[in-house]
Amino acid sequence: MSFRKNPFSGGFAISCGLKHLIDWISNFHFDRSDVEYLGTLCGDNGEPLFSPEFLTYMSELKFTCDVHAVPDGTLVFAHEPLVRVVGPIVQCQLLESVILNIMNFQTLIATKSARVSLAAGDRPVIEFGLRRAQGIDGALAASYASYVGGCTSTSNVMAGKLYGIPVKGTHAHSWVMSFDSELQAFHAYADAMPNNTIFLVDTYDTLLGVAHAIKVGKYLRNNGHKLAGIRLDSGDLAYLSIEARKMLDEAGFNDAIILASNDLDEHVISSLNDQSARIDAWGVGTKLATAYDQPALGGVYKMSAVRNPSEDWQPKLKLSEQTAKISTPGILQVRRFIDHLSEPPWFIGDMVFDESTPPDANEQVIIDPMDFTRRKSFAKGAQSVDLLIPIFVKGKLRYPMPTIEQSKARVAEQLRHLHPTIKRLLNPHKYPVGLERNLHEVRTELILKTRNANRTNTKW
Amino acid sequence: MSFRKNPFSGGFAISCGLKHLIDWISNFHFDRSDVEYLGTLCGDNGEPLFSPEFLTYMSELKFTCDVHAVPDGTLVFAHEPLVRVVGPIVQCQLLESVILNIMNFQTLIATKSARVSLAAGDRPVIEFGLRRAQGIDGALAASYASYVGGCTSTSNVMAGKLYGIPVKGTHAHSWVMSFDSELQAFHAYADAMPNNTIFLVDTYDTLLGVAHAIKVGKYLRNNGHKLAGIRLDSGDLAYLSIEARKMLDEAGFNDAIILASNDLDEHVISSLNDQSARIDAWGVGTKLATAYDQPALGGVYKMSAVRNPSEDWQPKLKLSEQTAKISTPGILQVRRFIDHLSEPPWFIGDMVFDESTPPDANEQVIIDPMDFTRRKSFAKGAQSVDLLIPIFVKGKLRYPMPTIEQSKARVAEQLRHLHPTIKRLLNPHKYPVGLERNLHEVRTELILKTRNANRTNTKW
Repeated sequence: MSFRKNPFSGGFAISCGLKHLIDWISNFHFDRSDVEYLGTLCGDNGEPLFSPEFLTYMSELKFTCDVHAVPDGTLVFAHEPLVRVVGPIVQCQLLESVILNIMNFQTLIATKSARVSLAAGDRPVIEFGLRRAQGIDGALAASYASYVGGCTSTSNVMAGKLYGIPVKGTHAHSWVMSFDSELQAFHAYADAMPNNTIFLVDTYDTLLGVAHAIKVGKYLRNNGHKLAGIRLDSGDLAYLSIEARKMLDEAGFNDAIILASNDLDEHVISSLNDQSARIDAWGVGTKLATAYDQPALGGVYKMSAVRNPSEDWQPKLKLSEQTAKISTPGILQVRRFIDHLSEPPWFIGDMVFDESTPPDANEQVIIDPMDFTRRKSFAKGAQSVDLLIPIFVKGKLRYPMPTIEQSKARVAEQLRHLHPTIKRLLNPHKYPVGLERNLHEVRTELILKTRNANRTNTKW
Repeated sequence: MSFRKNPFSGGFAISCGLKHLIDWISNFHFDRSDVEYLGTLCGDNGEPLFSPEFLTYMSELKFTCDVHAVPDGTLVFAHEPLVRVVGPIVQCQLLESVILNIMNFQTLIATKSARVSLAAGDRPVIEFGLRRAQGIDGALAASYASYVGGCTSTSNVMAGKLYGIPVKGTHAHSWVMSFDSELQAFHAYADAMPNNTIFLVDTYDTLLGVAHAIKVGKYLRNNGHKLAGIRLDSGDLAYLSIEARKMLDEAGFNDAIILASNDLDEHVISSLNDQSARIDAWGVGTKLATAYDQPALGGVYKMSAVRNPSEDWQPKLKLSEQTAKISTPGILQVRRFIDHLSEPPWFIGDMVFDESTPPDANEQVIIDPMDFTRRKSFAKGAQSVDLLIPIFVKGKLRYPMPTIEQSKARVAEQLRHLHPTIKRLLNPHKYPVGLERNLHEVRTELILKTRNANRTNTKW
């Protein structure tokens, strides 16, 4: 399973989804009701699609594949395998939809979250996407991947309960509307929730709302409590945050924070920071949980080699008139090279290779699959790490799934090794990813051979 | 719950989500582990957020609200309530996120599906979105809403099992790649699945693939079976479908269908039809299941009235500097007017009114909430129907949920009454939706009063 283009016109992606994929595979089976349902299916001619023998085979099917994958929270790039399945072809194919469904979405959201968090810098980002996600489980998956990718908390209390993600939130506009005045509403809230005193100030008029929050902040202070902050949810966030900061500081509430929300994404946050907006925390919902500007990763799962029992692997590829859509054959692994002399040690390039023809230590060169004249070599003895690790071995789970905090920490650690020009949100530098020389040659030969065998003239 | 703008720059939306909302509400409760989890939550100061009394209250909470909603499959428009909840404020608020989560997404997808199906005309549309949706449940919800909105089947076998949606699919590219040649692969498939013989012909070279499908089609014919059709999944679908049609017809396979897929949406389908592409069935995935060009509906759930026990309702609204974001106060209902003299009877306009001030039969006028100079009146005695119907009454389900087939049939029936200019995909005619005169006056007065009470100068 790989994808063809880094999402959001960005320079990288963050792999995510392995936890949920492991849960699904661990429970892989066709139960009686599944098989009965399949037995009811007919073709357009009214004849059953599946024979009784096949249905029995399905009901007895046990998962016996080897699955390799990159750990959740790993930096990944276009053309690299994230998940690799080796086993009987029926089982490999039955996994296709679920691998794509889970990995595509969570990788997309973890990547978006990383981008938003990079834009926010050291200011926390709260994931606010529940009400715009694809159902309750869609929202849970979005909360999970957002937290791994860099968000510091979620407004989704169920995600807090299930995954241990810190939950944060403020009162709603309706809290304010349910009282006769905003001031009365803030007072009542201060009494009800003295330990979570962030006031949403834009129900009627934002700066008047700030003045009301300050009044109630003084009341809190006089009663041994504290004004935690205010939340802006509409209007010109640059102007309003600067004005609100002045008002709060003048009233002695220098450590009351300003939380902002309202259709934010990494670009709006960058722009607000460029305008010196005084925003201490960001609430990001719709554009994160739906990956609004690119709501699908477009990952694919391709057969890359087949063999009959006791024979050698035959590399396989899917042709396409579009070069980017031609798949890479082989039992693939990714080797990441690291410049251990730099500080921090930069990731300097990734080599996709076939495990049956491991790279020659004397000639570690990668060739861009999109342009064979672009090459890069790595010095002999260069430090490297292989990204795909065993998850299931002959159908048995052999991977202790890291905690969500470990996956999150992995993102932070990985990003530390990625050069800032590649992390840039707009027009990033391209990270070098290429094929090992043998693999490049096998692939080129196979493209030519497959086109020839099918008498295909390349369309220009 | 309402939305502010018809999605996809279109003229209408199709309400969907009620089935799943009913399932959720029917199971509404806080179980012991929920309450225990809430008890662990603390503010930034380390103090518990919730008191033991409040947690006990939550654990004992029973759902007692009245819920009104428009049936799944109903035509709806911006500014109209889709769901209305009346009850104790705590319960009303606890429903907010789930109503938005479920209704926003399914309404969005049902609408997209209706648009795609309108573009496809009488040709079937298969929903192919599983691998790009938000997790497994996201995909199931997308399949459900797509089927209601107009799709005729899904590739998601689980959705077939759970909801009774017809399932359709073809073999994969990997089937072809797992054999030494495409012809061999098609032969093996014909033997394995003689009742579902649609051949995916673009693994190597599309028109050569068509020739192979024709060869195997003759084999099928000679053995008492039938070539059901071919599937195009890449390349120039207009050119390839026209060429493939010629080849199939020349070989006597006039009733073999051509199924097309590959990043389709309503605009691509319209364009292909304009080019006289010979496509008999459409497979639509990513752009349907993610609503790619607008992945969030942006629906909102606003408090519109409050009262203390034994007092009268007080209308409430949320102000905003953007007129479109000012909510509508009152206990709202929607009355749809129908011109029963036309054939078919056209829907001619919708009136949003407060149930406590029902419209005057002598003066049925609607006023555009975005421009009070735009008005439309309906003749005395004009036929009409009220859209919101009781679902839960004092917490008890009182609505026999229609079957998915009934909801689907409702979409077809509703669209029959909508003038073609409003169904147009690009720059549609605007369907008249407005406020009843009393409601308009109450709203205007409340806007002015609320602004005044909060000493707000409108920003220009």
